Amino acid sequence: MKQLLLMLLLAPCLLFAQDQAKYVCPPCGPCDTIIFHKPGKCPHCGMKLMKKDTAEKRMSVCFLLYDDIEILDFAGPLEVFTDAGFQVFTVAKEKKPVIAQGVLKVLPDYSLADAPPADMLAVFGGNAGPTAEDPEVIAWIKSRDKNTDRYFTVCTGAFILGNAGLLDNQTATTYHGQIDNLRKKLPRTKVLDNVRYVDNGRIITTAGISAGIDGALHIVAKLKGEEEALRVARVMEYDKYVPNQGLVVKK
Amino acid sequence: MKQLLLMLLLAPCLLFAQDQAKYVCPPCGPCDTIIFHKPGKCPHCGMKLMKKDTAEKRMSVCFLLYDDIEILDFAGPLEVFTDAGFQVFTVAKEKKPVIAQGVLKVLPDYSLADAPPADMLAVFGGNAGPTAEDPEVIAWIKSRDKNTDRYFTVCTGAFILGNAGLLDNQTATTYHGQIDNLRKKLPRTKVLDNVRYVDNGRIITTAGISAGIDGALHIVAKLKGEEEALRVARVMEYDKYVPNQGLVVKK
Repeated sequence: MKQLLLMLLLAPCLLFAQDQAKYVCPPCGPCDTIIFHKPGKCPHCGMKLMKKDTAEKRMSVCFLLYDDIEILDFAGPLEVFTDAGFQVFTVAKEKKPVIAQGVLKVLPDYSLADAPPADMLAVFGGNAGPTAEDPEVIAWIKSRDKNTDRYFTVCTGAFILGNAGLLDNQTATTYHGQIDNLRKKLPRTKVLDNVRYVDNGRIITTAGISAGIDGALHIVAKLKGEEEALRVARVMEYDKYVPNQGLVVKK
Repeated sequence: MKQLLLMLLLAPCLLFAQDQAKYVCPPCGPCDTIIFHKPGKCPHCGMKLMKKDTAEKRMSVCFLLYDDIEILDFAGPLEVFTDAGFQVFTVAKEKKPVIAQGVLKVLPDYSLADAPPADMLAVFGGNAGPTAEDPEVIAWIKSRDKNTDRYFTVCTGAFILGNAGLLDNQTATTYHGQIDNLRKKLPRTKVLDNVRYVDNGRIITTAGISAGIDGALHIVAKLKGEEEALRVARVMEYDKYVPNQGLVVKK
């Protein structure tokens, strides 16, 4: 009898606590700041809402490496994301050293076979052709799509993501010397030149090599706020960072 | 008899060929362009003259790596020097993977024990303290000094070179958060803040992290001309490169 009385007394508090659960859409644009009080889909971007606490967890990023990858392509964003507190790990087709730009030997953390899921997949340029044309790598990217919230490419990394079908009906950019080739390769993609990065919401592509730094800072600004991006740029003494220097595609 | 006649006939040509040998001082400043016709020392900078052909050989650069080195500190200059055709190799205290910034596993090409000589030694920042205070590393740097034409430091890499005595009576800079510490540590060094890089001729130090890119491009401009530095910056899509943004110390 006492227990029943206690439950009756606590019921309004429990209901109130349930009411307090907050939901947000995964970071993608202006609708990120809207707080919802029920699960479901964001009426603005259509993405599945997630609990606000979950959204604030540490962002994990999978860096896909391969032989003859361009050094600054991946090292610039690696510096930015690490400074911003993201959790980065590296993956290569096999778990043996890759040689970046013919010079730097990097040991990947994982192979395609044992790489854990990540919130974001990042792919980079350099001699991207063999990786873009590798059916095993492309199948691996596609197989992880359902668990990947967002994608980031630098330079000719766009060819890899494009071959996985992820740039279809998207706006994208790539290395200045490969703009025409990407247009030919991906007829369903609007390929822009003279732009530092292009943000489609879920998929962000950047121009060549050093543009990866600006694209990564844009992602930090998008996910953690412009103040955090400016803080990271200051840490890196990257006084040359210009916020909003790329194109954010309006849907 | 015929051989003797041939030698007498050729003698003036051989003497003329010897006269044509050209000498220059190693690249260090305005005196680089002076052509000397005898070996010896440059009367302007005091450096030992070298044959002009030798001066034009491929520049070799030794990158000293260590655990918790900052990624962009070394990766930015590695991109620049590689794009400029320099021959870069990596060295760590032992020939086992170093973990850059707690994230990137890099396999060095050599250990201190078996590293070949290089025209330039490059040292970088990050958690530089343990390396700067390591007597074995400092002794190794000093032991190679006679065969090292020039030095390059990025960020807190200046503490390592400073502890080897190489910044005595030089002007230098470092990471913006470590200016006062470097001043205390190296009382015989003039330490400047708010400068992207400082070029003493043989020794060039840069500010933090991303400033290494600008310092490396300055070295390319110095050794191979401004046109080449601009070409490399264009390859890297580093439109933000501003030539002569650092201080060249007048002696």
